This record gives sequence, C-alpha cells and structure tokens, in this order.
Amino acid sequence: MYATFQFQELIDQALKEDIGTGDLSTRILPEDLTGLAKLYAKQEGVVAGLLLVEQVFQRVDPRIEVHWLAKDGDIVKVGGVVLELVGPFSSILQGERTALNFLQHLSGIATATKRAVDQVAGLSVNIVDTRKTLPGWRALQKYAVRVGGGQNHRFGLYDAVMLKDNHLAAVGGITEAVERIRAQVGHMIKIEVECESIDQVKEAVTCGVDVIMLDNMGINEMREAVQYIDHRAIVEASGGMKEERLREVAETGVDLISIGALTNSVTALDFSLDLGDIKASTRASWERGT
Amino acid sequence: MYATFQFQELIDQALKEDIGTGDLSTRILPEDLTGLAKLYAKQEGVVAGLLLVEQVFQRVDPRIEVHWLAKDGDIVKVGGVVLELVGPFSSILQGERTALNFLQHLSGIATATKRAVDQVAGLSVNIVDTRKTLPGWRALQKYAVRVGGGQNHRFGLYDAVMLKDNHLAAVGGITEAVERIRAQVGHMIKIEVECESIDQVKEAVTCGVDVIMLDNMGINEMREAVQYIDHRAIVEASGGMKEERLREVAETGVDLISIGALTNSVTALDFSLDLGDIKASTRASWERGT
Amino acid sequence: MYATFQFQELIDQALKEDIGTGDLSTRILPEDLTGLAKLYAKQEGVVAGLLLVEQVFQRVDPRIEVHWLAKDGDIVKVGGVVLELVGPFSSILQGERTALNFLQHLSGIATATKRAVDQVAGLSVNIVDTRKTLPGWRALQKYAVRVGGGQNHRFGLYDAVMLKDNHLAAVGGITEAVERIRAQVGHMIKIEVECESIDQVKEAVTCGVDVIMLDNMGINEMREAVQYIDHRAIVEASGGMKEERLREVAETGVDLISIGALTNSVTALDFSLDLGDIKASTRASWERGT
Amino acid sequence: MYATFQFQELIDQALKEDIGTGDLSTRILPEDLTGLAKLYAKQEGVVAGLLLVEQVFQRVDPRIEVHWLAKDGDIVKVGGVVLELVGPFSSILQGERTALNFLQHLSGIATATKRAVDQVAGLSVNIVDTRKTLPGWRALQKYAVRVGGGQNHRFGLYDAVMLKDNHLAAVGGITEAVERIRAQVGHMIKIEVECESIDQVKEAVTCGVDVIMLDNMGINEMREAVQYIDHRAIVEASGGMKEERLREVAETGVDLISIGALTNSVTALDFSLDLGDIKASTRASWERGT
Amino acid sequence: MYATFQFQELIDQALKEDIGTGDLSTRILPEDLTGLAKLYAKQEGVVAGLLLVEQVFQRVDPRIEVHWLAKDGDIVKVGGVVLELVGPFSSILQGERTALNFLQHLSGIATATKRAVDQVAGLSVNIVDTRKTLPGWRALQKYAVRVGGGQNHRFGLYDAVMLKDNHLAAVGGITEAVERIRAQVGHMIKIEVECESIDQVKEAVTCGVDVIMLDNMGINEMREAVQYIDHRAIVEASGGMKEERLREVAETGVDLISIGALTNSVTALDFSLDLGDIKASTRASWERGT
Amino acid sequence: MYATFQFQELIDQALKEDIGTGDLSTRILPEDLTGLAKLYAKQEGVVAGLLLVEQVFQRVDPRIEVHWLAKDGDIVKVGGVVLELVGPFSSILQGERTALNFLQHLSGIATATKRAVDQVAGLSVNIVDTRKTLPGWRALQKYAVRVGGGQNHRFGLYDAVMLKDNHLAAVGGITEAVERIRAQVGHMIKIEVECESIDQVKEAVTCGVDVIMLDNMGINEMREAVQYIDHRAIVEASGGMKEERLREVAETGVDLISIGALTNSVTALDFSLDLGDIKASTRASWERGT
Repeated sequence: MYATFQFQELIDQALKEDIGTGDLSTRILPEDLTGLAKLYAKQEGVVAGLLLVEQVFQRVDPRIEVHWLAKDGDIVKVGGVVLELVGPFSSILQGERTALNFLQHLSGIATATKRAVDQVAGLSVNIVDTRKTLPGWRALQKYAVRVGGGQNHRFGLYDAVMLKDNHLAAVGGITEAVERIRAQVGHMIKIEVECESIDQVKEAVTCGVDVIMLDNMGINEMREAVQYIDHRAIVEASGGMKEERLREVAETGVDLISIGALTNSVTALDFSLDLGDIKASTRASWERGT
Repeated sequence: MYATFQFQELIDQALKEDIGTGDLSTRILPEDLTGLAKLYAKQEGVVAGLLLVEQVFQRVDPRIEVHWLAKDGDIVKVGGVVLELVGPFSSILQGERTALNFLQHLSGIATATKRAVDQVAGLSVNIVDTRKTLPGWRALQKYAVRVGGGQNHRFGLYDAVMLKDNHLAAVGGITEAVERIRAQVGHMIKIEVECESIDQVKEAVTCGVDVIMLDNMGINEMREAVQYIDHRAIVEASGGMKEERLREVAETGVDLISIGALTNSVTALDFSLDLGDIKASTRASWERGT
Repeated sequence: MYATFQFQELIDQALKEDIGTGDLSTRILPEDLTGLAKLYAKQEGVVAGLLLVEQVFQRVDPRIEVHWLAKDGDIVKVGGVVLELVGPFSSILQGERTALNFLQHLSGIATATKRAVDQVAGLSVNIVDTRKTLPGWRALQKYAVRVGGGQNHRFGLYDAVMLKDNHLAAVGGITEAVERIRAQVGHMIKIEVECESIDQVKEAVTCGVDVIMLDNMGINEMREAVQYIDHRAIVEASGGMKEERLREVAETGVDLISIGALTNSVTALDFSLDLGDIKASTRASWERGT
Repeated sequence: MYATFQFQELIDQALKEDIGTGDLSTRILPEDLTGLAKLYAKQEGVVAGLLLVEQVFQRVDPRIEVHWLAKDGDIVKVGGVVLELVGPFSSILQGERTALNFLQHLSGIATATKRAVDQVAGLSVNIVDTRKTLPGWRALQKYAVRVGGGQNHRFGLYDAVMLKDNHLAAVGGITEAVERIRAQVGHMIKIEVECESIDQVKEAVTCGVDVIMLDNMGINEMREAVQYIDHRAIVEASGGMKEERLREVAETGVDLISIGALTNSVTALDFSLDLGDIKASTRASWERGT
Repeated sequence: MYATFQFQELIDQALKEDIGTGDLSTRILPEDLTGLAKLYAKQEGVVAGLLLVEQVFQRVDPRIEVHWLAKDGDIVKVGGVVLELVGPFSSILQGERTALNFLQHLSGIATATKRAVDQVAGLSVNIVDTRKTLPGWRALQKYAVRVGGGQNHRFGLYDAVMLKDNHLAAVGGITEAVERIRAQVGHMIKIEVECESIDQVKEAVTCGVDVIMLDNMGINEMREAVQYIDHRAIVEASGGMKEERLREVAETGVDLISIGALTNSVTALDFSLDLGDIKASTRASWERGT
Repeated sequence: MYATFQFQELIDQALKEDIGTGDLSTRILPEDLTGLAKLYAKQEGVVAGLLLVEQVFQRVDPRIEVHWLAKDGDIVKVGGVVLELVGPFSSILQGERTALNFLQHLSGIATATKRAVDQVAGLSVNIVDTRKTLPGWRALQKYAVRVGGGQNHRFGLYDAVMLKDNHLAAVGGITEAVERIRAQVGHMIKIEVECESIDQVKEAVTCGVDVIMLDNMGINEMREAVQYIDHRAIVEASGGMKEERLREVAETGVDLISIGALTNSVTALDFSLDLGDIKASTRASWERGT
C-alpha cells in the first residue's frame, strides 16, 4: 500500500529514459486507433507492482483506462491476465516496456520471497530483507518482499541501530558500543548487534540489546546461540542463506532469516502485453499536438 | 566513460534512501577516527562502476580519498582489492552500503555479459542488450554491458525504429509500416523489423530495412533466414537466449544476439569493505557540526 | 506529438519565472469574474505549440476550458483565432504571457521552416535542423521544425555519430576514425563524416559511411561531390544556408540541407489574447484561498 | 553578475539534452589526449555569457581550465578569441555545442541591445526589455540586455504592477483600477498603467501612477503625452519599436522605449571553437571509468 | 490567492518527510473504512492556509473530498470546524499531521498579524513583514501576513533596493550610494534607505529616495524625522517593534511599522482533527495496491 | 552531525527565494571590495546550525572563507562572535539574510530545548520532540533539539508505530490494535500506544507494548500510571507540557516528556552580521561575469 505521490518521480524518470525526445516507431500509427490490450503472465508467480503499472500508463496518457483482474499478492498462472487496458494504441505502446520493467522486477522479488517463505512453512520464523537493494528502489523492493510474505528489516541507517564488526572494533567491543549508542538515540529506536561467536552473543545478551544477529554461523553454533539467548532478544540468522539451507536454519529456532539475494539478485518474472480488438475511433480531442 | 553530472541525482537519491535523516549507528564513533579501508572482491568477475563508488564516497564526505587499484573492465580475483579509501571512518561507513550496491549490481552485469561473450568467442557475432532494464538504471546498465564486452542495442524509443508485431498488425504489414516510417523519421535513424517467419524476413529485405530481428526462431529457421538475407541487412537473434544456446545460435551466422536477462535478471557480484589501520587523528576542521 | 509529462517541468519553470510569488495586478479583479478569451494570430504563419498553451493554462487553473479552433501545422491568417478559453479572467491573465511566449517561439520556427521547405519545393531534398538549439528547448524546437515540414537531424551526441574536423585531426584522418568508431558503437547507430574537400569525400565513400556532410562547399564542389558519391551515402549540405541560396544548393542533388538558423535565430510569430464577454459568475468553489 | 547556483539546473539540463546517455563520437579519442582550444568570434558584436561557458565546461569535466581573454560587455571583432581552454579534448568536445549555444544566444541579445542603444545615443532615454522572453530563460535574457547597455523592465507579474487594457476593462477604468491596486500591494511596488489615448494619459496622471506606458501611439500623440505628463510620471513608449523608428521616438522625450524583439526574436552571434596544440599526456587519474 | 503549482513541491516534500517509506500504524485499518473527519480550532484566531490543507489531503489520496466551512481570513472560535473531510480513514490519518503543521503555522502568523493590526486601529499606518522568514517558506509566510491584515515589504533582494549601513559604509554615504544605484536599476524599482540619525534622514530626503527606514530610533527622534520628511518619502519604523510599543510608534506618524517576529518567532495556532462517523464501505477500486 | 548533500536542496531553495533574479542593492559595490565580516549573537543562547551557515555562504560564492569560533551546542553570550567570514563583500551581503534565518531558527530551538532540559536537571527524564514540525524542516529541527540536549521521538509515520485514539476507535481497542500491528511490521519497529486513562494503561501493559504515552493526564493520574507500569514499558508524558509544569511532571517518574512547542512555536535567537575591515583587493579572477 503506497500513495501516488511516493513513486511519481521514479515513474517519470523511467518514462523519460525510455521515451526521451519521443517514440519514433509509433509515429506510423493513426492517432485515432484505440482498442483493448491485455497484460498477462508468461510464468507462474506472485504479482507485485500493479499500481505502478497503472500509474505508468496514466502518466503517458490519462485517457488509458486500466481494469484490474488481479491484485498484488495474487498467484498468477501462465497466461493469466492481470490487467486490461483500453485506450489509444500509440500511448499503450509507449508505456508498455516501462510498465513491464516495473512489474517483472517486483513480481520477481515477490515470487522469490514466497518461495523462501514456503521453505520454512509451519515454523515460527520470518523471512526478512536487507539493505542490499538497488539504489533508487529500496522502498519498492521492500514492498515487494512484503507482498511475497516476507517481513522488512530496517529501511536504512536512520530507523534502527545495527552495530557491526567495524563499529565494535572501532570503539572496543559490544558493551562499550551499546552503552554509547544508548546515550545517543531516542527511545523509539531498537538496537541490534552483529555477533560472530557465542562469546559475543553472551556479551550482547548481558547488554540487553533488542536483536542479535548471528553472522555466518554454522548450524550447531546457531542452535547453541538460540538456546543461550532463550528469548531474551530476537535472533536473526544472516549470511549465505541459500534456499536449500533455509529449513535447516529455521529449525535451529532463530526468529528471522535475512536474505540479501531477495533484492540484489532478482530474476524477473515474465509478463507480456498483447494488443487486440483494434477499432478506429474518431479522433480524440486530447491528441491535438500534431 | 561518463561525466560526473550524469549520475549525480541517482547517487544523491541512493544516499538519501539509505542515510535519510542520519545514520544512527555511527554516532558512537569518535569524529576524529580516521584510517584506511579496503574494498575487495569476494567472487571472481568483471569490475564495473568504480567511478560511481568514488562519487558516492566523495558525496558523503569530500575528505575521503579514493585510490584506484583496478579499473572498470578488469577481471578481479577473490580477495582482490579494487579501491583503497582513506578518511573518517564514520563517513566511510555511511557510504559503504550504497557504494557496494552500485558496484555489485554493475559488476554482476559486466560479469554475466563477459560470460556470454566468451561463449561465442571466435565467431563474428556481438552480444547486445535490450530495453528490459530497471527503471532509472538504463544508461548505467548499458554501460556495464559494454564493460563486459557486449554492445548496446538502441537506448530507447527515441533513437531508432523497431517495428514489432503490434505495429505491423496495426498498419497492415511490413511494407506499409516501413513506408510510413520512412516518411516520418530523419536520415540518422536506423529501422529494424521484428520477423517471426521467413516470409516476413523476405518482405523486410525487399523493403531494405537496416536490421532484421529473428524473433524466437528455431536454429534451422535462423540459418535459413541468414542465408536468405545474405548481408543485405544486419541480423539479430532474439528470444530465450540462454547461455547454453548461445554458441549454437551464433553459428547460424547471425550478427547479433540480444539477451534481456543481462539487465533484468542480474546476479550481484559480491564485494565487501574492510576497515583497518585505525588512527585517531586530530579533529578535522570540516566536521564541526556537532 | 508528445506526452504531457515530457514538458511539465519546463512549463512549471516558465510559470514560476513569470508569476513567482504571485501576480500583483490581477488582485484587483473580482474572483468570480469569468468569461471568454480568444487567442489569435497577428501575423500569418504556421501554428506550433498549441498543446503547450493548453497545458500552461490548465496548470495555472484547472477550471480553464480550452477549445481548439486550429491544430499544430495549420497555416493561420492575420486575425485567425486558434484557441478559445473559458474560465476565471484572473487565471487567464496569469497564464497569458507564458502561453504566448511558448506559442510565438515555436510558431516562429515552424513558419521559417515552412518558408525554407517551400523554397525547395518539387526537389527531392529535405530541410533539416542542427544541434544549434536553445539550451532546455531542443526537443520542442525540433518538434516545431517537423511541424513546419522539416526533418530532424540527430538529437544529440548520443543518438548518432558525427565525425568532424576536430575528431579527424585528433586521430589522423577519416579512415582511422571510422574504423575506430565502428568498434565502439552498436549496430543501430549511423555514422556521418564532415568533409571539406572532394578528397575527403572520396575517402568517406571508401569507408562506407552512412552520411557525408559537405561542409561550407561551393555549388560546383557540391555538385561534383554528389556525382562522385552517386547514392553510396546520404549527402548533407551544411554551412551558411541562407534562404536565398537554398534552391541553388538543392539543385546540386544533395539529399539534405541543414540550417542552424531555424533554431538559433528565431523570429517570433505574433499572437495575442483578447478578453471579452465578461460575466460575473457566483464565486467558484475552487478559489477559496482568499 | 550572478552566482553559480542560479543557473546550474539549466546548465545540467542543457548538458543532458545534448550528451544524454553519452557522446558516441568522442569514444574514438584517446583518453589521454589533452591540449588547448580557442573560443573565438566569427562576427563582431557584444560578448555575453562567458561565465556560463566556463560553468558548462567545468561541469562536463572539472579538469578543464578556462582562461579569460575577454569579459561580458566587451566588443569582440571577427576572429577575436574570448576564452582559451586547456584540458582533455574529449571533454572539451562534449561541452562545445552547449557552451556555444549559450554564448551565441546571449551575445546575440547583447549585440542587438547595443545597436538599439546606439540609435538613441545622446538622448536621455533608456532602452528596456519586456516579458516577451523564452520560457526558462528570463533572468539570463534580461542579464544580456543589461550587458548590451539596456535596462530591465519588471521581471514578472510579481515585482511590479502593470494595469493593461484587459484589467481596466474588467474593473471599469483607470481610476477605479488604481484605487483598488493601492489597497492591495505593499509600499515597495510601483504602478504602471498602459494608455492608448491622451484621455487615458490624463486620467493616469491624475491618479498619480508611477509610470505611464504609451501603447502603440503615433509620434505626435507621444509628443503631446510627454508634454502633458511633464515629469509627473515616467513615460514608456511601447509597441512596434523597430530599430529604424527608435531615434524618432526617443526625440519625443519619452523616458523609456521597450522592445520585445530584443528577447523574443534573437539572431545568434556566431562563435566557434578550434582545437589545436594537441599533446598526448599521461593518463589522468580522474578518467578512470573505462 | 495562489495557484496549485506554486506549492506542490513543498507539499510533496512535507508528505515525504512524514510518510517516508510508508505509514506503519495505519496498516491496521481495513482499507474499506471510510467516513467523515472534522478539522477544528482549539484556539481562537485567524485561519490561514486552508487551500494547502486541501492540497495535502488530495495529494495523499484524490478520493478524499474536502468541504469548506470557513475561508482564509475568517476568525475562528474554539471548537469551530473549518473543514470537513470525507474519505478513507487511513488516507486521512496519513495526511493529518502534515496538514495541521501547515495550518497551525500560517494561522499563527495571521493571528499575530491581526493582533498587531488591531493595536494601531484607526491610525493611517500599515503593519509590514520583513525578510526574516523561514527558508523555503517566504511566499507562504508573507501570504499569511496579508491574510492577517498586514502588508508585504519587498519579497527579496531582487524586487526592490534597500541600502543599509553596510552598503553605505562601503561606498561612502547615502548620496554616493543612491546615485550609483540609480544608474544600475530599472525604472520599476523603488529605493529605500536605512537611516540611523536625523542627519541621514535629511540626506536621504535630498536624494529623493522612495522610502526611508528609521532604524531603531526612539519615539521623539521618529516624530522629528516624520515631521522633517513631511510626505516627501514613505516612512518605515523598524527595530524592536514589540506589540506593546506599536501604538506609540504609530502615533509618531510613520507610514509603516515592520516586524520581523511576525515570521521568525511564530506561535502555532492550535487545530485538531477528529475522526467520526465510521462506515465500512465496499472496497474502493482505487486502493488495489495490497 | 549531517552530510553536505542532505540539506543542499533546502539551501538552494532558500537562496533562490531571497536572491531570485539577482540582488539589486549590491550592484553599487565595487567587485573587488573584499574584507572581513563577523557573525555574532545579540542574545545569549545555544548555537545550532553553523554548518548550514557555512554552506550558504560557500554556495553563494566559493571564495568566501569561513572561520569557526564556536561550534553547535556551545552557549554563546551577547556579542559573542561565532563565525568570521573573509571574502567579497557583495557575496557576503547576498548570503547574509539566508544564513541568519537558518541560524536564528535552529538556535532558537536549541535554546528552548536547553531551557526545558535545565528544568528537569537531576531527574532521569528526557525531553523529546514531536512530529509538530515545519514542513520541509523536520530533520533540521530535530537536529536542533538534539543540540539543545533533547532526544528525538520518531521521525515520521515510517520508523515507529504510534497507536492513537483514532486508530484504537477504528479497530475496537488496544488489544485488537496491537495484535494487528504485530502481524504487520518488522522486528525493528517499536510500538507505542496513546492512553487517556489508567484502564487503557493497564491494557497496554498487558499487551506488552514498548512505550506508553500518557495523553493529557493530570499529575496524580500520571504518578499512578508510572507506578502501575513499573518499568514494564517506557512512559511518555504528553500534552500541554509548558515550561513551568515540566519539573512537576518529571517528578511523577515518567521517562520522557514530549513538547510540540519546541518545534512549532519557535522564538528566533537573535544574531547579526557586521562588515568591517574593508580592503579593495585586486579584481578577483572568479568575478568575471560583468
């Protein structure tokens, strides 16, 4: 769920990038050629980004009507139509590639997230994202993770504290770092510490941090950490969390598994647009500019 | 090769997205803590995007010095250091994730392109990209394709004509479409036609188009098309061009193979940043704002 | 033909430049004073830019209705009304100057282009523009050239190659330059070479370039070049192409004549706006902000 | 005189418009090719815009050094060099056209203004501009008018009051309009009234307005108006002020002559850039991005 | 009175600042929960900024309808409802704080201005603002001053001349400064001089400046200055103009009293928003994005 | 502590708002007039915003050198100089007002915060801000609160959950609301509930929320709530927290007192700039643009 104004700039940028000084190829189409187009899936997966698709087409030409046959979060089958568009064909063709680029990327993320979530079905663990996102796309990518059934980790450096090896080294250890940060941040901020050993985990528990990240630990070490922590902090498993390992990791009892690849190694989910049902209408009053 | 001003907006956007109202965690670091950091590869691949990395750090803090140990296009081994940074640790940590996000994505593209190019080594064929790019990233992604040894297809709807099935259907065929477009575009514009059959290929050759795209054809059909065209147009093979098929396709004699996955299904190339060599310097004159 | 979003920024910029912190003079008008205004030509010429005019008024006040009595490309006589506006007078007056500034400039370009095109009527030559455009206005100025019957040369440094004297000098000649550029650019890019002598023309033909520009040549030299080239490349005449020379140049058989003055030395085509038919309506619900 | 930040956006916009996704042609130049270039006049006139030229080149590449051999307001002869540039040739070539487009337009305005000012030499009259400017360019065009020896009229609807025929008609005459506006605007705002007859002039004088514009009056009528006004208000002559009429108009005793053509019908002043003195330097540390 | 486009950027900025990557708390509300909300005053004062409030809500969600029960300039009592909103509650809650922040600040200014104006009721003096405004807010703050019954001083450095002590010192006195500035600025520009003594006042009168500012003078000195000036210039009193001194100052006969605190030391006027009348409607077609 | 890029847009906006099409008054100053200026306090208080001041002047003219004699958080006495500037006087005067407007507002906030903090000295309570900030200024205002010794509450709707009366009413109470929100937000997000009665406090404690806000409670009710909560949640007192009540409220044992007036009813702290020590230097190479 997001408001129109949040991604308008990115949409305009995307349209300018593709249309630039004007689409040359659609100059051959009669201006009064309008009709129906269908946007459909060529692969099975979870749909994400339909509102962006709608906005793309309406920004190209407000006369394009968009009818929704699916909604974000739905699982779409091969051939399943998600949107129908009615409007001038030349406008639809100008928005086509940009709309598909948004939809394929976000649906790719939602689909991969869903697959990860399914791996750990029945266990009380959440799949979460990271800050390994594409510059300019963080809020959208994290939205797609939620659509796929995952949960969001922090959005940036500004909304939560994460003390990592470099921070700890610089100030001399977990205890010192946590004390310092408590004096610096407000009461609404949670504190997470990255731990690479059981000793660090113990120190973090003593400090009363909110979340402990087990960084690149083996299964046994993770299990030991979870038992030691014993619900005194939320436990996050992180590092090399490939799909085939997820269930095993989840069974150690961690609360969260964070996966960078959800957002930085995305495979597009294939969608396509088909024109059809052409009808030459009378010249629309809008399209007067030659 | 690109100028500083071209991507400054995207860099600022990326930094705002990550740093937002301010990094909380680095508040624990003494302001006068400066030193050396190393940016190194955790996977082998082709480096792309170092100039962006430099710009990210200098935008966070102009005091950060960046020393180049590699350049875009170099193949880097596991552990290979590509950049050394010297400057305030808190500034380096604020830029770290954003810089890595740029570098990992672009190097991922360059590496995948290189792999495709290597598949067809020795044959006179070029690997090219498509318009299936991430909104906001087209110029950068296409740059990374060039770094990896590929060539760029058109950049958008504005710099070349591509007549696709939808255009052809709307105006009644290739001949009609090509005639119309010739009357509409300037002399610097090349015309490509998407063909799905040998008959369409023949019509396109008759029309004297510059480039013919063989869309989703089988190997035999492609070979037949190439022979028919006989250098009267540039020939592009497109559709489902997976790595394992590339050599076979190339051997049909096509001039170009276009691959959407190069830019819409990117696997990040892993890089990391290590702080080291900490030294508490005197308080820098720049960092006066609390 | 262009989409709304393409020039919205320029329109906003223009309105801010003129209206700034608010129009002082229209404070004397009753808010409920609405009526009809007519936009008409004070000189005969080719109209260009009506869609921008509409957008300007609708951006100032969405209540203004715009009725089109002409369209871009029409020849308008002295006194000919091109648009009628109905809405609050104070809003119409706030948009007036900005709208006229767009319309007069673009119509000036279209009119001058038409005059040039008329000079070479009956000959198979195209009048084309250059990159000598006003910063911020390139796409609009090139649109107006098309409206006037001209054709567009390349839009910028990014969509075609033009090798000029400086490039040739720097790398040692046409042959060397063309070879290098072929290895650098994709298959959709055309290559033009600027030639100042018949010898250069011969070298360019040998290299198989797409377009040859005859730079500042005399009529005889141009004729000789055209004969030598003999359709092996498109031929462009350039340099000092004043109106009175155009027919003579065209008769040498060149394919294109490029004229920088079309866009860098524009004489505005005069239009004016007349209020009339005033009626004090009830206070509109929109205009509530004092 | 203006500050760097004022026109940075327009400069970036202009560079993006020309360079877009990257200059193709300069890819053939060795990156280490640096040297000297000269910017010189091909026509005699008044130079305006050199600071913008400098900023354009430094935005393309901060390594380009700019040496000033002239300053804004200087009269330059044919062949006169105004700036020398030292830096990488590929960067200089990327900025060339944009820089020239700024310089030629502004110098064209300054030169035409100077010509108008010279027509009325010795008389106590000022040549002033209007709001008939190119959208996006008002401040720059008005700067160029000052450089040419003219004076600026108001900058927009926000900094002074001008009551025109439409305003007067709407509220019922000059007296009513002036009374209303006095109640609406602050003490720093001057009030000008457009008059089309001596009767209107008399009414305006009675109201004590600051400036009276004589709109499209004949010479005799203007002379009569000036005598009647007798320094009780500043007098502006406006409408169809072609160069050949200026002296005659000035001799009626008006204080100001406003000329829309100064900014809406500009003939570019021709400048050109010559590369020379090439030297292959060692690869600069800056240009590392392939 | 201002147009929609003038403050759209500030509104978007404000919404991004508050909503950022998305409102977390309203995720608990059913999407189909719509109803009525009332915006009412918690303190008595002058309302200013209702058009901004409307724009904020419509930018968050165009489905929100806004009904006006008051208009800018009205005096609202405690509990007085100024606007009723009908629409999705989650959207109303997302816009609430931003809308209130605009309204409370601008109404605070209008209310304080009204209080100052009331102090000098019956005297021929105007209360005016200064350039002591909040960066980014000048036009809005000055609008609120007008709503409260005050008048605007100059808007910036660009629309009028004010010669202050530093200017005078730098060029050697009032006479020299005024002469210089007359040669530099156009005929629409008024000139004000800041005077700290009767001697300076006399010199300013001799120079014929438009406005004389009496800077930090005592009551007697002001009275003497007013008498000396005797309507040969507009007289502004400035410096430490606290509410309790206003009447005494006004009675010296000055034309204007300028008060920096009107805009740089604003006390918010308290407003609040109450939801009520909840009804679960059918799922709106707009809100499809999960 | 913040990076340069974070507020550059606001600074440019502020400079454009004040300087617009150019400062008229400084045209009288010789361009080569440079010297020293001092920025000093006219009231005692806590300094905040010096880095912005520096950036303002350097954006106007990079030749201006800024020497720091104080830093953010320092208490400055009347007459205390905080910065010395050396550079061209005309540039210093152009930046003066904008720089002061930033400094006076932020120092006003820091000073008021400090006064509130001092009221509760010795008690374990923190003074925190709210979302009642000026649109466009949130991050800066919250920075100033930290400079004054306060702590930041959440920055927006995106970084923490706050369930208020409207949320609770809409979903049917605290328990229901907290359950729903836990299913919707990630593990890094804290949850605060606004309580208006002891019963609500008890329900909130049972739900295990992180923070409980006591909204507009009396002193006795607050004390009772604190005792009941007994450190099972952080306790925030809110509503009408005037300076004179702070100590009494703090003594109830609440952890936090939030004060909207810190940011929405700011009294500027007075600073001024004095030019001095004028010296006419040789014409600087930078200032070539007339």
